Amino acid sequence: MAVNLTEPKLLLPISGIRLASISAGIKKAQTDDLVLIELAKNSQCAAVFTQNKFCAAPVTLAKKHLQTKIPRFLLINSGNANAGTGKQGMLDALESCELVAKQAGCNADEVLPFSTGVIGENLPVNKIGVALPNLLDQLSENKWINAGRGIMTTDTKLKGISRQVELQGKTITVTGLSKGAGMIQPNMATMLSYIATDAAINKDLLQECLNSAVQLSFNSITVDSDTSTNDACVLIATGQAGNDVITQNSSDEYQRLLSIVTEVCLYLAQAIIRDAEGATKFVAIKVSSAASINDARQVAYTVAHSPLVKTALFASDPNWGRILAAVGRSGVDFNIDEIQIYLNEVCIVSAGGRDTAYTEEQGQKVMNQQEITIRIELQSGDQTACIWTSDLSYDYVKINSEYRS
Amino acid sequence: MAVNLTEPKLLLPISGIRLASISAGIKKAQTDDLVLIELAKNSQCAAVFTQNKFCAAPVTLAKKHLQTKIPRFLLINSGNANAGTGKQGMLDALESCELVAKQAGCNADEVLPFSTGVIGENLPVNKIGVALPNLLDQLSENKWINAGRGIMTTDTKLKGISRQVELQGKTITVTGLSKGAGMIQPNMATMLSYIATDAAINKDLLQECLNSAVQLSFNSITVDSDTSTNDACVLIATGQAGNDVITQNSSDEYQRLLSIVTEVCLYLAQAIIRDAEGATKFVAIKVSSAASINDARQVAYTVAHSPLVKTALFASDPNWGRILAAVGRSGVDFNIDEIQIYLNEVCIVSAGGRDTAYTEEQGQKVMNQQEITIRIELQSGDQTACIWTSDLSYDYVKINSEYRS
Repeated sequence: MAVNLTEPKLLLPISGIRLASISAGIKKAQTDDLVLIELAKNSQCAAVFTQNKFCAAPVTLAKKHLQTKIPRFLLINSGNANAGTGKQGMLDALESCELVAKQAGCNADEVLPFSTGVIGENLPVNKIGVALPNLLDQLSENKWINAGRGIMTTDTKLKGISRQVELQGKTITVTGLSKGAGMIQPNMATMLSYIATDAAINKDLLQECLNSAVQLSFNSITVDSDTSTNDACVLIATGQAGNDVITQNSSDEYQRLLSIVTEVCLYLAQAIIRDAEGATKFVAIKVSSAASINDARQVAYTVAHSPLVKTALFASDPNWGRILAAVGRSGVDFNIDEIQIYLNEVCIVSAGGRDTAYTEEQGQKVMNQQEITIRIELQSGDQTACIWTSDLSYDYVKINSEYRS
Repeated sequence: MAVNLTEPKLLLPISGIRLASISAGIKKAQTDDLVLIELAKNSQCAAVFTQNKFCAAPVTLAKKHLQTKIPRFLLINSGNANAGTGKQGMLDALESCELVAKQAGCNADEVLPFSTGVIGENLPVNKIGVALPNLLDQLSENKWINAGRGIMTTDTKLKGISRQVELQGKTITVTGLSKGAGMIQPNMATMLSYIATDAAINKDLLQECLNSAVQLSFNSITVDSDTSTNDACVLIATGQAGNDVITQNSSDEYQRLLSIVTEVCLYLAQAIIRDAEGATKFVAIKVSSAASINDARQVAYTVAHSPLVKTALFASDPNWGRILAAVGRSGVDFNIDEIQIYLNEVCIVSAGGRDTAYTEEQGQKVMNQQEITIRIELQSGDQTACIWTSDLSYDYVKINSEYRS
């Protein structure tokens, strides 16, 4: 079902990062569900996490560990979110870290735990313990694709990408993975995503780089307005590429690294939308000439969340009145006589109603495409925002009404 | 598909109100699509309208007419919303009023126009002109049920109710109609609803009565979070019951009238949810012990709008983790260790996770029912709110992806 999404055939290794993936029996299916990522000593690590009040136990623990130590391992399981599990959930997350620490020879607070899957069931820690020796044995720099598959839940496609840039005559590589297909409206964070680079950069700047990249990518997508309890996005810098440590955000090196990290995040975020549950369309909603970025995002999200707009997109129906109605109820102030709305390059709304030159045939031609841009010109300022979303299909309902059965 | 909704066999006439309904050829189907409601002289009329910035031309004109005159006629068409139609839309709405005025012998600003149906197509005023003589001929006090059918669009059931109360030895009657099944999250107004009483009450108090009743009924429901461009709710008082004019909101008479008007509004609002597009469940979301009513409503609406909660309800799946995740992302502050969540009387969440006494069997038993209450105890204050919603089914997608085809 994914919309124009091809799985990567090759992901470039990052010097200083080793990965492994295994089937530990956490998922019902016999597919990989436990991933370990090892960070070389002297790496730096930045992360953003879900804003959901009911954040999962591993999120709480990962945040805590990240404050005290630079992590040596990320332990990620799919098939069980360890969320809504109360005190037992925290004990289970901590025990997972202790198991890794004991077998790998590090401290428990040097392990960051992550979980994704069904909410409200206890994590089968014993299965993790049994699988760990094999997992440690399999650590390799060339297991990015395996790790990408191991973190998948309802995803139909592996999501990963590599990019390179030259800094000071050194080749810098960035490789990233993401998973996610539903319960997607990240808020200051995202679904699970793990990105690593061999660039040398200090910790504060690494976090700044991640925050910037996430705002324009993972924080600009929505499938169904549901923010998960487990969202996390991690950016690791191993510093093994040999460049001088980047310490200034005004430097050319920082800007060039930021540029490819943003490119990687944007690809991974859009890949989540292309693989959204039941998606048949990939839709960009661009709001321009807004009084503020918040206004622009509010209008874009109101359109993106409208079930009526989403079902019209699924039906390839140029029922532009539903877009107009969604814009009108967004709560953002604008002059209805000046606003313009476009489907790709076709103007559908101007002067408070249907554009006089618009024909149903033109609208139909755009709606028949798999990739559509809805462009809204508010004519009340100079700010813009772009968010990406999918349509609402029978298969979205099917997938989400049958998920646990 | 409607959930436990029976059509009324009889609606009580209101002295001073005559109605008529006809097929004018505005809808594709040969069903009634044009309704006229005549108000006796000396009636009072209150109304609330949609907050959508792209409100339809008839909404703008009805508001304007209501400010200058007490209406003598309400003209309502279904099948065409006359929204997103720019200047031509205003000209068409005005011409409709002028046609009624000319043939009925009143002023154009004594006519309130209302439209519901597809957005963005011009109103076929000529068809209205042709149908009007017949419509005027058919005006009768006993046509409430016909009028109720004439305003329907995707509704599968007629929605109407009558209630009576004694005031000062006089029997006061309230009869109301509503239509609506999708694009439902009224905001200070509702879908189309017409309610009349023969009580005598002054205009300001009539508006206050309507505002109070609407807040607890039409403004407490949602199907799909989409606020229509055409929502309106009208309350008429003909004053023909013979009671002394009600002028004080502290009076016993006002409170008793308010009580049955609220009862009528609540029935009509809930009827819209029972008949929601594709609905298989009727769901009340009650939020208690909140710090403010706004907090309570925000939590309730976040749960009600969650596509993941709605598809779980459709599947009768006690996937309570989705409810917990929706509460967690509502943006409202609470202590996760103290909050409790119930499915009917079954506690599903306490102490930050699944209630220790909860069993899947208990949850399944509740979810199998057609009427379900999700109760959320925030434990952070003493305010409450209740809103009503439906589930998200294949048929919702079907109805809304095929609506125009």
